[in-house]
Amino acid sequence: MTFKLISTAALVVALGASAVMADGHSKALMGAVKARQGQMQLYAHNLGVLGAMAKGDVAYDAAAAQAAADNLVAVSGLNAMTMWPQGSDSTSMEGTRAKAEIWSNFPDVGAKAGAMAEASVAMAAAAGSDLASLQAAMGPLGGACGACHKAYRSK
Amino acid sequence: MTFKLISTAALVVALGASAVMADGHSKALMGAVKARQGQMQLYAHNLGVLGAMAKGDVAYDAAAAQAAADNLVAVSGLNAMTMWPQGSDSTSMEGTRAKAEIWSNFPDVGAKAGAMAEASVAMAAAAGSDLASLQAAMGPLGGACGACHKAYRSK
Repeated sequence: MTFKLISTAALVVALGASAVMADGHSKALMGAVKARQGQMQLYAHNLGVLGAMAKGDVAYDAAAAQAAADNLVAVSGLNAMTMWPQGSDSTSMEGTRAKAEIWSNFPDVGAKAGAMAEASVAMAAAAGSDLASLQAAMGPLGGACGACHKAYRSK
Repeated sequence: MTFKLISTAALVVALGASAVMADGHSKALMGAVKARQGQMQLYAHNLGVLGAMAKGDVAYDAAAAQAAADNLVAVSGLNAMTMWPQGSDSTSMEGTRAKAEIWSNFPDVGAKAGAMAEASVAMAAAAGSDLASLQAAMGPLGGACGACHKAYRSK
């Protein structure tokens, strides 16, 4: 829980403050974009492992499910301070789908990031128990991803 | 320490076992490659934050340094089990520089991953103290990255 709350708070602080990388150098901006896209890839991959079990495409494996869920907790707990600098939105630069609205809706973005972290913690508490528990935790997790993407990721 | 050892053990197990994703489907393999590349991007970004302070390009900021170092610990602690499936080496597929030697040198790869996790923990213990401590921790960290890249990443 502490992990999650720190992460959310850090994101809110980061979005509000002028970040270290927000110096107008496109190389630094691109590095930040690649880092957050890396974070998203790690979400996608570990969600994929869990989703394949949830759907029955892959046999349920408690250890593998727990590992994937623990990874989601670790990834959602990363301090996002330097990964969302001003000027790294999709109207300011190429190579990102992050809407400019992110930077004008800090409290809501922070709340959505917090919901993702919370759903990851819930998955980590469920995934290693049994398939039904894993399946029950998938909905909130997918919902948390989707809520942020719908509001803040361009097509 | 526990975090690190679990991570290293998981990597060794993963490399030895037939991973969940190693089903010969190129989409699944590519997903695994993107996930580990995402992990590398997160390493690079957070190392960049620390490196910029170490070199004096950016003013030392204890909180930002600590956050970057904590991120390195979290990222190096990820369970790598599903991210290095058999058949995802650079001789078997496009889009990766991971040498096939990785899959025939499990103990050494695991040791190198462990060294990276250990150097990250050392950085996290140093980065928030002062600039000199951060600078002293940079060498082992860069060395750990380089040791694995030199041995197992193709040009």
